[in-house]
Amino acid sequence: MDLLDALQWRYAAKKYSEKKIPDEILNRIISSIHLSASSFGMQPYRIFVIENQQLRKELSVFSFNPQIIEASHLIVFAAYNSITQKRIQEYLELIATERDIPLQNLAEFKEKVLDGLLLKSDEENFNWAAKQAYLALGTALIAAATEKIDATPMEGFNAENFDDLLGFKEKGLRTVVLMSVGYRSENDDSYSKTKKVRWHRDELVTVLK
Amino acid sequence: MDLLDALQWRYAAKKYSEKKIPDEILNRIISSIHLSASSFGMQPYRIFVIENQQLRKELSVFSFNPQIIEASHLIVFAAYNSITQKRIQEYLELIATERDIPLQNLAEFKEKVLDGLLLKSDEENFNWAAKQAYLALGTALIAAATEKIDATPMEGFNAENFDDLLGFKEKGLRTVVLMSVGYRSENDDSYSKTKKVRWHRDELVTVLK
Repeated sequence: MDLLDALQWRYAAKKYSEKKIPDEILNRIISSIHLSASSFGMQPYRIFVIENQQLRKELSVFSFNPQIIEASHLIVFAAYNSITQKRIQEYLELIATERDIPLQNLAEFKEKVLDGLLLKSDEENFNWAAKQAYLALGTALIAAATEKIDATPMEGFNAENFDDLLGFKEKGLRTVVLMSVGYRSENDDSYSKTKKVRWHRDELVTVLK
Repeated sequence: MDLLDALQWRYAAKKYSEKKIPDEILNRIISSIHLSASSFGMQPYRIFVIENQQLRKELSVFSFNPQIIEASHLIVFAAYNSITQKRIQEYLELIATERDIPLQNLAEFKEKVLDGLLLKSDEENFNWAAKQAYLALGTALIAAATEKIDATPMEGFNAENFDDLLGFKEKGLRTVVLMSVGYRSENDDSYSKTKKVRWHRDELVTVLK
């Protein structure tokens, strides 16, 4: 599907049918998230794709979004709450291995990453990591739409409770944003027929020739 | 182009050729950004597409990215540094006008938006707005890639100086992220041939059946 058509087609689904997303399609959405761009390429977040109904039921207590249980799957975007020297080192080793180059070749890049991240506070780095997760959410929403899969990005949840239930604290992760995926309930979701509203293009975008 | 192919094809371009993006293609990239999803649909940011060479030269002093002047265009993503009741009201009026419904019909939605935003500090709302801008950056990167336009997302700049030069302070905006767009220099950018590195899929993504 053409990207502009996909963006016009998508909306934040309110009501889902019970239909499940086939593994093959879900896999393509995950692959897109996997390829999403990020600062330094570091992807300082982790993704949890939850089908488990019991777990989603427990999570739904801490959100006002019924889409968490009603959709086919829930995708949780969780960002690292700090960036450690150890994690940076692991990332550099990954690059060296993947590109089959000596680690020393990455000395200049390493300095840039260390300068860019280690001088900042944990809170600043968490915000930075959360923003990379939102970039990935942007990728995920488009990946779903191009597959004609409905989705709902969601911010209305208690992150601490999500972190507890998902065991994020031990992993150094914090829930930042959610996205449910599935199939809209064709007869039951008036929002699917509601006109999409955006600021007038000239108000949102200024072109300086 | 297939989305996964586009995501594989793209990389953060380091060196650009002098070729300019035709208006028609640039317009489609802008249209995609315009349609990008955001929390409450509010798009609490503004986009500046800068071709002006003199302005880009002045901006480039405050960044270590030569792509700012060397690419065809520079796109600046700027988020609102606070969310006012006035802006929320303007947004509700826009929805009412676009959907041709009385403003009263949006009472419940209005309460959600006010509860979600007006109880938070300006700094929290700026962070929230910045994250929506990153979601739009995710849209923009894909929009460029599907048009076979090269791009570079950039965080290495002095936001205050950018805000000064672009007159953002009077508008209540703050620069949050940049993206240059253009055509890669085929012979001059070794990064275009470098293997893309991502965390192993099983490390980045956990599937809970």
